[in-house]
Amino acid sequence: MSFFTKHYPPLGTPPGTLVERHREEPPYRIRLVDFLDEDQVLVREDINPADCLPFLESESLTWVHVQGRPTAGSLRQLGEAFRLHPLAVEDVLNTGQRPKIESFDHQLFIVLALPLIEDDVVTLHQVSFFMNGVFLVSFCEGGLDPFHETVKRLQGGGHNPRHRGVDFLLHSLLDRVIDQGFPVLENFGLLLEELEELILTGEDKAILGKIHLLKRELILLRRVLWPQREVINQLLRDDSELIRAETYPYLRDCYDHTIQVMDLIETYREMASSLLDIYWSSVNNRMNDIMRVLTVISTIFIPLTFIAGLYGMNFDRNASIWNMPELGWSLGYPLVLLIMVLVALGMLLFFRRKDWL
Amino acid sequence: MSFFTKHYPPLGTPPGTLVERHREEPPYRIRLVDFLDEDQVLVREDINPADCLPFLESESLTWVHVQGRPTAGSLRQLGEAFRLHPLAVEDVLNTGQRPKIESFDHQLFIVLALPLIEDDVVTLHQVSFFMNGVFLVSFCEGGLDPFHETVKRLQGGGHNPRHRGVDFLLHSLLDRVIDQGFPVLENFGLLLEELEELILTGEDKAILGKIHLLKRELILLRRVLWPQREVINQLLRDDSELIRAETYPYLRDCYDHTIQVMDLIETYREMASSLLDIYWSSVNNRMNDIMRVLTVISTIFIPLTFIAGLYGMNFDRNASIWNMPELGWSLGYPLVLLIMVLVALGMLLFFRRKDWL
Amino acid sequence: MSFFTKHYPPLGTPPGTLVERHREEPPYRIRLVDFLDEDQVLVREDINPADCLPFLESESLTWVHVQGRPTAGSLRQLGEAFRLHPLAVEDVLNTGQRPKIESFDHQLFIVLALPLIEDDVVTLHQVSFFMNGVFLVSFCEGGLDPFHETVKRLQGGGHNPRHRGVDFLLHSLLDRVIDQGFPVLENFGLLLEELEELILTGEDKAILGKIHLLKRELILLRRVLWPQREVINQLLRDDSELIRAETYPYLRDCYDHTIQVMDLIETYREMASSLLDIYWSSVNNRMNDIMRVLTVISTIFIPLTFIAGLYGMNFDRNASIWNMPELGWSLGYPLVLLIMVLVALGMLLFFRRKDWL
Amino acid sequence: MSFFTKHYPPLGTPPGTLVERHREEPPYRIRLVDFLDEDQVLVREDINPADCLPFLESESLTWVHVQGRPTAGSLRQLGEAFRLHPLAVEDVLNTGQRPKIESFDHQLFIVLALPLIEDDVVTLHQVSFFMNGVFLVSFCEGGLDPFHETVKRLQGGGHNPRHRGVDFLLHSLLDRVIDQGFPVLENFGLLLEELEELILTGEDKAILGKIHLLKRELILLRRVLWPQREVINQLLRDDSELIRAETYPYLRDCYDHTIQVMDLIETYREMASSLLDIYWSSVNNRMNDIMRVLTVISTIFIPLTFIAGLYGMNFDRNASIWNMPELGWSLGYPLVLLIMVLVALGMLLFFRRKDWL
Amino acid sequence: MSFFTKHYPPLGTPPGTLVERHREEPPYRIRLVDFLDEDQVLVREDINPADCLPFLESESLTWVHVQGRPTAGSLRQLGEAFRLHPLAVEDVLNTGQRPKIESFDHQLFIVLALPLIEDDVVTLHQVSFFMNGVFLVSFCEGGLDPFHETVKRLQGGGHNPRHRGVDFLLHSLLDRVIDQGFPVLENFGLLLEELEELILTGEDKAILGKIHLLKRELILLRRVLWPQREVINQLLRDDSELIRAETYPYLRDCYDHTIQVMDLIETYREMASSLLDIYWSSVNNRMNDIMRVLTVISTIFIPLTFIAGLYGMNFDRNASIWNMPELGWSLGYPLVLLIMVLVALGMLLFFRRKDWL
Repeated sequence: MSFFTKHYPPLGTPPGTLVERHREEPPYRIRLVDFLDEDQVLVREDINPADCLPFLESESLTWVHVQGRPTAGSLRQLGEAFRLHPLAVEDVLNTGQRPKIESFDHQLFIVLALPLIEDDVVTLHQVSFFMNGVFLVSFCEGGLDPFHETVKRLQGGGHNPRHRGVDFLLHSLLDRVIDQGFPVLENFGLLLEELEELILTGEDKAILGKIHLLKRELILLRRVLWPQREVINQLLRDDSELIRAETYPYLRDCYDHTIQVMDLIETYREMASSLLDIYWSSVNNRMNDIMRVLTVISTIFIPLTFIAGLYGMNFDRNASIWNMPELGWSLGYPLVLLIMVLVALGMLLFFRRKDWL
Repeated sequence: MSFFTKHYPPLGTPPGTLVERHREEPPYRIRLVDFLDEDQVLVREDINPADCLPFLESESLTWVHVQGRPTAGSLRQLGEAFRLHPLAVEDVLNTGQRPKIESFDHQLFIVLALPLIEDDVVTLHQVSFFMNGVFLVSFCEGGLDPFHETVKRLQGGGHNPRHRGVDFLLHSLLDRVIDQGFPVLENFGLLLEELEELILTGEDKAILGKIHLLKRELILLRRVLWPQREVINQLLRDDSELIRAETYPYLRDCYDHTIQVMDLIETYREMASSLLDIYWSSVNNRMNDIMRVLTVISTIFIPLTFIAGLYGMNFDRNASIWNMPELGWSLGYPLVLLIMVLVALGMLLFFRRKDWL
Repeated sequence: MSFFTKHYPPLGTPPGTLVERHREEPPYRIRLVDFLDEDQVLVREDINPADCLPFLESESLTWVHVQGRPTAGSLRQLGEAFRLHPLAVEDVLNTGQRPKIESFDHQLFIVLALPLIEDDVVTLHQVSFFMNGVFLVSFCEGGLDPFHETVKRLQGGGHNPRHRGVDFLLHSLLDRVIDQGFPVLENFGLLLEELEELILTGEDKAILGKIHLLKRELILLRRVLWPQREVINQLLRDDSELIRAETYPYLRDCYDHTIQVMDLIETYREMASSLLDIYWSSVNNRMNDIMRVLTVISTIFIPLTFIAGLYGMNFDRNASIWNMPELGWSLGYPLVLLIMVLVALGMLLFFRRKDWL
Repeated sequence: MSFFTKHYPPLGTPPGTLVERHREEPPYRIRLVDFLDEDQVLVREDINPADCLPFLESESLTWVHVQGRPTAGSLRQLGEAFRLHPLAVEDVLNTGQRPKIESFDHQLFIVLALPLIEDDVVTLHQVSFFMNGVFLVSFCEGGLDPFHETVKRLQGGGHNPRHRGVDFLLHSLLDRVIDQGFPVLENFGLLLEELEELILTGEDKAILGKIHLLKRELILLRRVLWPQREVINQLLRDDSELIRAETYPYLRDCYDHTIQVMDLIETYREMASSLLDIYWSSVNNRMNDIMRVLTVISTIFIPLTFIAGLYGMNFDRNASIWNMPELGWSLGYPLVLLIMVLVALGMLLFFRRKDWL
Repeated sequence: MSFFTKHYPPLGTPPGTLVERHREEPPYRIRLVDFLDEDQVLVREDINPADCLPFLESESLTWVHVQGRPTAGSLRQLGEAFRLHPLAVEDVLNTGQRPKIESFDHQLFIVLALPLIEDDVVTLHQVSFFMNGVFLVSFCEGGLDPFHETVKRLQGGGHNPRHRGVDFLLHSLLDRVIDQGFPVLENFGLLLEELEELILTGEDKAILGKIHLLKRELILLRRVLWPQREVINQLLRDDSELIRAETYPYLRDCYDHTIQVMDLIETYREMASSLLDIYWSSVNNRMNDIMRVLTVISTIFIPLTFIAGLYGMNFDRNASIWNMPELGWSLGYPLVLLIMVLVALGMLLFFRRKDWL
């Protein structure tokens, strides 16, 4: 349940204050990509915040990506260099934000959540974007750089967003973050299939806990990914000057993907509920079967035991001829056995006919 | 659960890239219908993409239908010939899209889902339409051509959409795809009736699994057909230049059908839930009846067995006259039998009066 | 479940085609009401479609009502005479339409559903209206004419809609169809009261089936009557030239009634669910009571039977003084009986104190 | 369930017709309040409809209140005198209307529901208001006059709405009707507290019925009070010429109260559901405890009884030394008793360790 | 359930009347903060209402905070001094209002709820704000001053809202009240974690009550905090002259926090429901296990006891050779024991194979 904990500053802290958090984390790394001209891409890994400044002042389109969680100090430095709004910078530091979009004069600020599966557990990493007409700054917490491939492709040429402007670059990165939902959900789909098979074969006792865990992860995932859809929708609707007309179809494509992700989550939730129903149905049916068969067995033997007990009574046959004369009959015992067999058969037949056995 | 799997390209692939998928599939076939003049319809089956080009350049209205899944290469070829938007073409290749409508300058792109029942399983095939003022291109995955009848009618004359323009042709095809929902749902309706009869007669043990399967298929069907309604609604609302005023009543008719399909799905879902309730009610009632009857039988015999056990004790009657004098009474045995009968009758009466038997 | 079956034409039939259905049905009848002048109403029963034409051409307001299901041929004839839109005429033939409103140039087309109780079963009959400035055509399937009283009142004079125009006449008929929901629902209300009494007195075993049936009928009724509300709302909102300002308050009154009908349906559904809860509560409580009492009885006798069994053992008292000396005690038997009574009383007391009995 | 029954006229009655209902009811009473000038209020109880007319023609603000259900005749008389719209007057006669607001030229018509607790049962009385610039007519069915206090205050002077106009008077009356919801709901709140205590102490068997009754009353109350909120909202939104700007804050205050009433109803419904859950939980837990303990007792005695039965067998010890030699051992009986005690203790320990007892 | 009780005046009291409530409460305290100039802040604790007046007349920005519940008299005095609307002042006195925002000419009135955890119980305190261009008046019921820290920071200098105007001060206080939801909900989160652990280890019997209590508190919290979101949203939407453009981003930040609080509440509610499911699953599974094992044990011993009873019958072996000859066999007893062992083993095997044990 740990990924609930929101990282918020102490109560009463004025908004926009950057409060350092003291947790052991891997160091953060800054990568700068500068689109010098139509053909050249400059990529600098592990650059210092200070070294970014000359690139900003140049006319060329610049993308600065910060992987990991920067310190409050370097965030402040970056924020000042790029003239980022202090409230937005605070949201980058205090990760666990709800996905959202904000526009501060001539600057877009977007927060998304990147779902990852690490050691069979879904974790969510906050990805933040700042964009104006000439640069894009992205932040991604956690150790895994989601834009590794994108940079490689930029260096290699081919389908390259550089001559399409900063809004197209933004789209590529949004698309990358949103589409990450598909493999995560595919994982859930496979898990659902496995669980269904397990229920049908009845092998595993821990199945109930697994379904409940799955449901809980879907609840949490939905809570975080649902506003993502709204973010892209608002980007489409707001008619920002930063987004050019030819980029809209691509963003609509992005929007479609967010809807598909939500659709899958909803469907998987319904299917998990349905699996629970099936599980309880099968447990219930099995229990009913057991109890019915056992009770029928008991019920058959109880009258027989009574008859046996009857002829185990010690009435004095010498006192009168009315006292258990059956005991003295020459065929008494076989007769009683016969009666017992008949009673048992009769009851079996009755139960069979009633369809109870 | 297999028809969940969305066919999406590897993560990070730039949008609009066509990635070949390697699955064994039947070859695709292209059919061209050209409306030369008011009276003549030219139909060419199994034409090559390249051979379509001259028809496109002609003034006459042309309909190209691609049945099955074309290769990435031929899709690219077709896309370039008809100047289709690369994002839309990508959606044709990566089937399993959510139904949607997009307009790229002067071109409408529509994706619908065609439900079919194959071997008692509902499968969904993506149908895509591209339309501008002079041509219509449709794609349908799977082996079954849904527009076979339409072409026949076009050739035969009669109620023929050709002189009504490309938007009326589009309507006919949309109508065909949407109305396919009715026979599929009628199938579900019959299944529900059958299941209800089975529950009332109590014949089938596998009934629970069948209801759950039915519910799941309805969940999936709803997920896919729900956005279909929105697609037609948007077509009505958007006031596209490609749709003429006289076609609107027909599209509204289409829209009505999508609502009716959704209504049926919702109603069937509620009825399936209701069937489950009835099933559990009857199982529960039956189990209660069995347990009650059996427990009553046991409860009647337990005191009798105790009495029998009592007179089976071996107290030494010679030791004192207080030791089980009943055993020596001349009517001891008949008396005990009488007591037993009375106890049994008393309990039966009590249970009867309490309405427990 | 039979009234689900929508009557739709074979797939691929071009829209607006009238396909004859081959079912045995009572013949249809046409009634014409012509408002000659302020004081005179001409009513002609069983008129031919052809005979209506002269009335249409006259300036006077004309109402043509078709009761029963006309043949495709006569529908086509009527449709052409009144210049009805072919799509609308198709909807009249293929009954089972969702309530809807359509406007084709200067003509309103409205479809409603008339609920009737026939032999304790709710059936729904489609009622369709065509209206323009000078005439009103209504169709009602089934054998029962809902407008019988209206015609009588028109003939008799008094509160007569004729001098208020065709829109007021339309309102009277809509009102008649919508208000039919009240007696049908009142029937459900009475049924709910009866069922509640039955549950409280616990007389009827078939109660469960009756509640389920009631719930299903309410589901179906809601599905059909829900869009009715939307139809009247759209009539109010659309500001049609055919509806005059002074008729609006009357239509708003109609709208109110549709909302009241929906309210009643929703409330009855909640009450039916609540009844089911109460039913299961009482069944459950009763079963618990039975099982508890029976189990307590068994539990009391089991130790007693054990004690009896103990002294029924045949250990050789001659072998040693340790072997069952109790059997030789002079008060052995009374003592054992006393112990048994004490054990039974002790357990009874314990169960009483624990409130288990 | 009786307050469901809507009082609607026979089907097909033209709208606006007043049909007399034949039920025994207390006579209705009319009270007239006339605001002669700033300082004087004239109050006339039990006035005749006819006597109201002169006051209407005067310039002074007049409030006519009708308590109880007037006859169709006097309603018609009043309606004509005040020029009330016939549809609205019909709604006053046929009580049980949904709360609603209507405006007929220069006249507002408002219907609300006044909840009262009479003999522990919630009943709803329709209160109707007609207002134009110079008079206000209110109708309240039932015997209890909700505006008794208001009139007293008016007579006494102090915080008096007379110099604030007819809209402020309307507000006072609306406020009075809406705030009546609070004591009624407070009653439900106290009942919920009582029921919770009863469940925790487990005293009352009829608790289930009480919760169900409570839930049903909340369902009905919600159905009626929900539209009340919409009525006040529409009054705020519609910008009627009859409501002056300075009255809006007071009406918004009213609106707030309707929302609070709905909030309370929703919360109480959730709490009633929660109470039901707790009830079933406790019943279920108790039943489980009983069955577990009883079954454990039976299970312990069953093997003991078997052992006792074993040594009650009558095998002929003289026939061979293999036949039940234990019976001849000198310590046979004590040994068997020891074994029995050990078996019982072992099982008790096992059940204890498994936490079953 | 006590914090439901709304403090509303007697029915029929004219709106805006201040009715004194008679409850023992700690005395209220007034604190005045006056922003003399850019650098100086004057803080006066425990000031009298009358002493505030000179500060109001000065041009400097003044903030008056009233902690605790003032008497009706002093409220009236304050209300008149600051020209607060009587309806708003009434809402301050009658705490337990729904969060809301009202604007009376040139004055904003905002009501929020401050959740606090006192002795493990969540209580809600009403916080009210009045604001115009030059002053801000805040009221907070209860003994705990939420703005203690804010005042300290104002005195200390640093990130100080004084030169940003009264709207920024308002934002700081709103933010403080809204963010108080996070620690309260964090508390719920920890409780959920604890409960989950308790369920898994199965230690605590009172767990059910705790979950139900948690759910109820979440229901109540949601009811109160839900409208808070709407309040901030309306503040953003209404474009009030009192809020300057540069404050909007900060208010949007506030709005985001209200959404996050609601998200957390919803998620915790779903998780509490899920916990209940898991609890019942485990209870159910455990009960099924117990009953199954016990019933299997009984079922195994019942036939054995019957066999023992069989050979405890007293048929006269001398009467005929058919009467229980087994008793005379030399290996009769060992044979019977063997049969018993075989029967027991056979049943055990059968149950094992059926997976019932």
